Amino acid sequence: MTLVEEYLQIRKYSEQVCEPLQTEDYVVQPVVDVSPPKWHLGHTTWFFETFILKPFSSNYQVYNDDYNFVFNSYYETVGNRVIRTDRGNLSRPGVNEIYQYRAYVDEAMVNFLANALNDEVRELLVLGFNHEQQHQELLLTDIKYILGNNPLFPVYVKDKKEVSVIQNEPGWIDIPAGVYEIGYDGTGFSFDNELNRHQVYLHDFAISKTLVTNAEFLEFIHAGGYENFNYWHSEGWDWVKSNHIASPMYWHLMDGEWFNYTLGGLLPVDLNAPVSHISYYESYAYASWKGMRLPTEFDWEVAAKHFNWGERWEWTESAYLAYPGFSKAPGAIGEYNGKFMVNQKVLRGASIATPQNHSRITYRNFFHPHLRWQYTGIRLVK
Amino acid sequence: MTLVEEYLQIRKYSEQVCEPLQTEDYVVQPVVDVSPPKWHLGHTTWFFETFILKPFSSNYQVYNDDYNFVFNSYYETVGNRVIRTDRGNLSRPGVNEIYQYRAYVDEAMVNFLANALNDEVRELLVLGFNHEQQHQELLLTDIKYILGNNPLFPVYVKDKKEVSVIQNEPGWIDIPAGVYEIGYDGTGFSFDNELNRHQVYLHDFAISKTLVTNAEFLEFIHAGGYENFNYWHSEGWDWVKSNHIASPMYWHLMDGEWFNYTLGGLLPVDLNAPVSHISYYESYAYASWKGMRLPTEFDWEVAAKHFNWGERWEWTESAYLAYPGFSKAPGAIGEYNGKFMVNQKVLRGASIATPQNHSRITYRNFFHPHLRWQYTGIRLVK
Amino acid sequence: MTLVEEYLQIRKYSEQVCEPLQTEDYVVQPVVDVSPPKWHLGHTTWFFETFILKPFSSNYQVYNDDYNFVFNSYYETVGNRVIRTDRGNLSRPGVNEIYQYRAYVDEAMVNFLANALNDEVRELLVLGFNHEQQHQELLLTDIKYILGNNPLFPVYVKDKKEVSVIQNEPGWIDIPAGVYEIGYDGTGFSFDNELNRHQVYLHDFAISKTLVTNAEFLEFIHAGGYENFNYWHSEGWDWVKSNHIASPMYWHLMDGEWFNYTLGGLLPVDLNAPVSHISYYESYAYASWKGMRLPTEFDWEVAAKHFNWGERWEWTESAYLAYPGFSKAPGAIGEYNGKFMVNQKVLRGASIATPQNHSRITYRNFFHPHLRWQYTGIRLVK
Amino acid sequence: MTLVEEYLQIRKYSEQVCEPLQTEDYVVQPVVDVSPPKWHLGHTTWFFETFILKPFSSNYQVYNDDYNFVFNSYYETVGNRVIRTDRGNLSRPGVNEIYQYRAYVDEAMVNFLANALNDEVRELLVLGFNHEQQHQELLLTDIKYILGNNPLFPVYVKDKKEVSVIQNEPGWIDIPAGVYEIGYDGTGFSFDNELNRHQVYLHDFAISKTLVTNAEFLEFIHAGGYENFNYWHSEGWDWVKSNHIASPMYWHLMDGEWFNYTLGGLLPVDLNAPVSHISYYESYAYASWKGMRLPTEFDWEVAAKHFNWGERWEWTESAYLAYPGFSKAPGAIGEYNGKFMVNQKVLRGASIATPQNHSRITYRNFFHPHLRWQYTGIRLVK
Repeated sequence: MTLVEEYLQIRKYSEQVCEPLQTEDYVVQPVVDVSPPKWHLGHTTWFFETFILKPFSSNYQVYNDDYNFVFNSYYETVGNRVIRTDRGNLSRPGVNEIYQYRAYVDEAMVNFLANALNDEVRELLVLGFNHEQQHQELLLTDIKYILGNNPLFPVYVKDKKEVSVIQNEPGWIDIPAGVYEIGYDGTGFSFDNELNRHQVYLHDFAISKTLVTNAEFLEFIHAGGYENFNYWHSEGWDWVKSNHIASPMYWHLMDGEWFNYTLGGLLPVDLNAPVSHISYYESYAYASWKGMRLPTEFDWEVAAKHFNWGERWEWTESAYLAYPGFSKAPGAIGEYNGKFMVNQKVLRGASIATPQNHSRITYRNFFHPHLRWQYTGIRLVK
Repeated sequence: MTLVEEYLQIRKYSEQVCEPLQTEDYVVQPVVDVSPPKWHLGHTTWFFETFILKPFSSNYQVYNDDYNFVFNSYYETVGNRVIRTDRGNLSRPGVNEIYQYRAYVDEAMVNFLANALNDEVRELLVLGFNHEQQHQELLLTDIKYILGNNPLFPVYVKDKKEVSVIQNEPGWIDIPAGVYEIGYDGTGFSFDNELNRHQVYLHDFAISKTLVTNAEFLEFIHAGGYENFNYWHSEGWDWVKSNHIASPMYWHLMDGEWFNYTLGGLLPVDLNAPVSHISYYESYAYASWKGMRLPTEFDWEVAAKHFNWGERWEWTESAYLAYPGFSKAPGAIGEYNGKFMVNQKVLRGASIATPQNHSRITYRNFFHPHLRWQYTGIRLVK
Repeated sequence: MTLVEEYLQIRKYSEQVCEPLQTEDYVVQPVVDVSPPKWHLGHTTWFFETFILKPFSSNYQVYNDDYNFVFNSYYETVGNRVIRTDRGNLSRPGVNEIYQYRAYVDEAMVNFLANALNDEVRELLVLGFNHEQQHQELLLTDIKYILGNNPLFPVYVKDKKEVSVIQNEPGWIDIPAGVYEIGYDGTGFSFDNELNRHQVYLHDFAISKTLVTNAEFLEFIHAGGYENFNYWHSEGWDWVKSNHIASPMYWHLMDGEWFNYTLGGLLPVDLNAPVSHISYYESYAYASWKGMRLPTEFDWEVAAKHFNWGERWEWTESAYLAYPGFSKAPGAIGEYNGKFMVNQKVLRGASIATPQNHSRITYRNFFHPHLRWQYTGIRLVK
Repeated sequence: MTLVEEYLQIRKYSEQVCEPLQTEDYVVQPVVDVSPPKWHLGHTTWFFETFILKPFSSNYQVYNDDYNFVFNSYYETVGNRVIRTDRGNLSRPGVNEIYQYRAYVDEAMVNFLANALNDEVRELLVLGFNHEQQHQELLLTDIKYILGNNPLFPVYVKDKKEVSVIQNEPGWIDIPAGVYEIGYDGTGFSFDNELNRHQVYLHDFAISKTLVTNAEFLEFIHAGGYENFNYWHSEGWDWVKSNHIASPMYWHLMDGEWFNYTLGGLLPVDLNAPVSHISYYESYAYASWKGMRLPTEFDWEVAAKHFNWGERWEWTESAYLAYPGFSKAPGAIGEYNGKFMVNQKVLRGASIATPQNHSRITYRNFFHPHLRWQYTGIRLVK
């Protein structure tokens, strides 16, 4: 596949994810962590325009100078107009205007990519691909949040499944103690936070081949897991109490039966599916109730070649920290990952919202421990 | 005009106010006091469906039971589904669906109004008319907020004016002391808060024929009015400090010149126009700086026959309280006004957002003292 | 009584109120509206030092320049040291140091008062007396709050009563409609907010001779008054729900019996005593449940000569606003009352915490509608 | 030293730390993380009473059942009285009463310790010693906060020093890569979080022999370190902006010179002393500005035998997490450490507030990254 083909394929996929939406669905931002779909479409476009076309494509005409106000991730204002606003308050630019913006930038990019590219541009281009793919994952989970918190429970796509692969046979994988290599060492793209490849000493452990299922998580609920502070971190317990948490997100108890909002609509909870939309706090409490623990991200990276993964992002016990020798790229691109390395937990794997070929065994995702809108899951270690 | 004609004219006007909007503009709620335009369109429809069609029109089929979740003013849930959400988070029902809902209810109402109506229904009908007219005023000011807080400053209607009548010649009207009659005493519609007609003793005062202009308000700014706590209430001063208030809402200082966002776009401040979008706190501070005061609502009602009004809602010194003998109607309709009679200030007059024939000299509007998104203004008394 | 004698008597009474306290009780500030007793003792002293001794007593040496940081009501800092703090965070100056400060200022005042005084000083002196008396009332209710919210329920003074006068015989007083005179017109001291004497038109009404009793208020509780939003203002209902209010302040349901913390300790609720420690919201809801209303402050002032009062501050329906012709004194003293004239409710009468001879029939007290730590009560009008 | 002697020595030291205080200083709680000194004195006593005397000493009479309400760390209420309060709101029990409580429990303990003790009691006793020593450290830093945030800047002890040992000669220690042993392996007391002894692979690094000094930190300030977001975590930058942080805690810029509140009073900043009272965010930003990093807790534990430490708690890069094989003790004692293992950073070493013989090279302290009231410092790694 040529770079142009890859560019067009990735750009098209963002639009495909939005195809089932009505115009209104593109606009809202129900909570701060969820961005409006139209913002994702504009922001990923602004990324290519700002970091590739403006600096490297001579004669490129910026589509609209004002878009910097609305599609910059930080909303720091430029020039005279200082207006503090949130993404979900912005009705303009409208959805059609943003699709026109995408078309304009795509045309300019296709022309630009016909030229010989130097290494710096190539690197930025691949970063742009990966950046858009990260947003594709958020796009789907943000859409789920927008639809799933509407009292009409609108269907995204009829019969849309949230489980795609066959789970492994139940069982445990034993990993012996020793020094292991961790981090990316391939020749393709990786994020700065996957570098450098380095050594970690692991003690022996056994890791489950399978993710915890809804049936298993229901046992935790029935055993009073949400009402016993002994299973929880102190901050997790505060979170449970002050938010009245008593089940995974999207679960609704209706006339004694548990229902689950999925992209295919509101359905009875699928007992065999892996539990999803749980916080780190809930993952920890579940493991604690079982007398087991979550894997560290290093446990996971070493063991993951021995089981199927990719259905749920898996919470690990590890805090999101720099690897030995970590260094930031210079300039705005360098802001990418390092500044988030405090108060967050690492997730490993991928989820059914992850675009194909986007994830790898060394990929490190990270979220604050209370967040639940991603397809998160639990794998146990003993 | 027949009742059917009046019904259709009022209903049509709500849709005319929204005509210049893009679909996205119907959806957002940038602050809690501003509702999405599509919510106004649905809620006013739900009012006729719930209070007239359901109880009085036999065989009426409710359009969609779930709409009670989203168009009830209180979002108290019914049945099993308990979802806490804000109006601005709801992308569904979409704009087209709401217009279909309006058409469906309008058709049912037209059929129903062909019948003979008893007094109770007639009263509810007129209340529904006035309710929708109140929402038309909010609709326009909410639209202004949505567009005016967008960094692209989109135009609602090119050349749209926010001043329509000729101001009075400057001058003062002297009102002698004495006992005056206050409150509605006509035979048409009035809200419960305008009743009962009663007597009030007024001391003599002189009231300005004209509203304070932007030029006059600029003098207050240049004199350091926003920086001197002596002109302000203690709570007003806290509001100024914690919100960094230094000018009326929608004003922007750009390269040393004051601009003003209007429904016609961002324009230089019109010095001759009455100042607008100021809080009660600012009105009070301005009057205090001038060594004068605001009128009470009783001053205003007695004097208003002597000057033109209707451009700006005028802040009064009066707290919003019940008139002697005030009583609430029984049932849900009775909740209309009484429960808001604490911590709010009365505004008198009307504004350029007020539908024609909607206001009258006894009409009492009310808002919390810090709010600014209505077309509020200042008239002085000495 | 000479001015010196009056000065010393008033100053001594503040210290008498504090006599039953332990040192620790002088220090804490459990909520923002309650000040530490030692702060009251220091602040009233600072008032005489700042407004009389410093400007008028030649050769007066300020006791400690730093005390301006801690005893000024506003804590605006002077000079280089900017430290943001709350009164309850300050352990220093200690209680003994503050009593020494009082002794030092008292000695200087006694010497100063031996001189002939001009009218300006006399006026400031009387304002200082009234200022300290207002703080004596707060001192007692703040002490009650500090002790009454301690889980050990310490006794202030054994057998201390919170009811002192005999209630009137039950019955109603009829007041005919007409124009009445309102406001202070004597020759002694009054606050600026009691001026000017002016006319008000009242419609006829009947006012209860007696305050609502605990027995009567219990009926409201048993009738579900705290659970039915129809009796409440919208903001009152929010206050009930978010603060889980279900009884007057200081009431505790223990093994099915209602107890009440009083200055004499925790005791069974006295059914015949007037209900106390209720917010305006509760007063309004109670009146609404009875199908009656609260008096306006004008109703009260006209009727109060016909019944005994002074046990409880009585909530009125009136918002705290300026009287016609109200004007502020120049300078810092002018800040006294005017700046609070928004979002507060007027209370009339006095309470068992009010120093003798401090109150009068034209006195206007005012608090935000949710506050309950004063000895507030309810008198009905129909 | 016998157990009784050790008990009495530790108990006495808590009282010695409080000796310079006035009664009022024992009472206040200026921020949620700082407890009133009298609470520390009561809570450590309640610990011995609750976990040793009540379960193991037959015939022991509880001093006051109500003390459970006020000296339990959690304030969960027992029985009928439900009062929500903060420690700083409680004036009772008073300081003298708490010293009597201490004397009563100490006498009972001395009697009890005359008996033969089984292993369980011995373990609880040593835990009680260490628990009180941890509170002694907090006691001193809480006292510093209480006095240092008072605008009078009271002196704790004249000439009290905050530096006691001689810093090392400047220089770097090289540690070669390899597998190292981490965690407690002695036979004495350690906390559960120091266990189990386990292996960690470290890459080679060089660690500074000396802590960053005030002179060095001033360079960071002068270089605009607090104004350049590139040095900060995203959450650190938010913390700087919203709290207007521009220097270490207790620093005051007065007429162009930096002063520092110390236990000996307000003094010019000592340029040679190690910087203190900085958050993790500031430590990270400083290291980032220098192009270096903070040590991990494992780096520190391996290297610390090569330099003097104990003056400042040293922020590490490590998140506070469980060691491999960590398990909680059963019962209430098991709550000790595990439940805090999220969102906190590890500090290593000790500080001048640490009681003698309390710390060891494997000791793990932990705080949220924004906290500054401990004697925290910075050691760099490259």
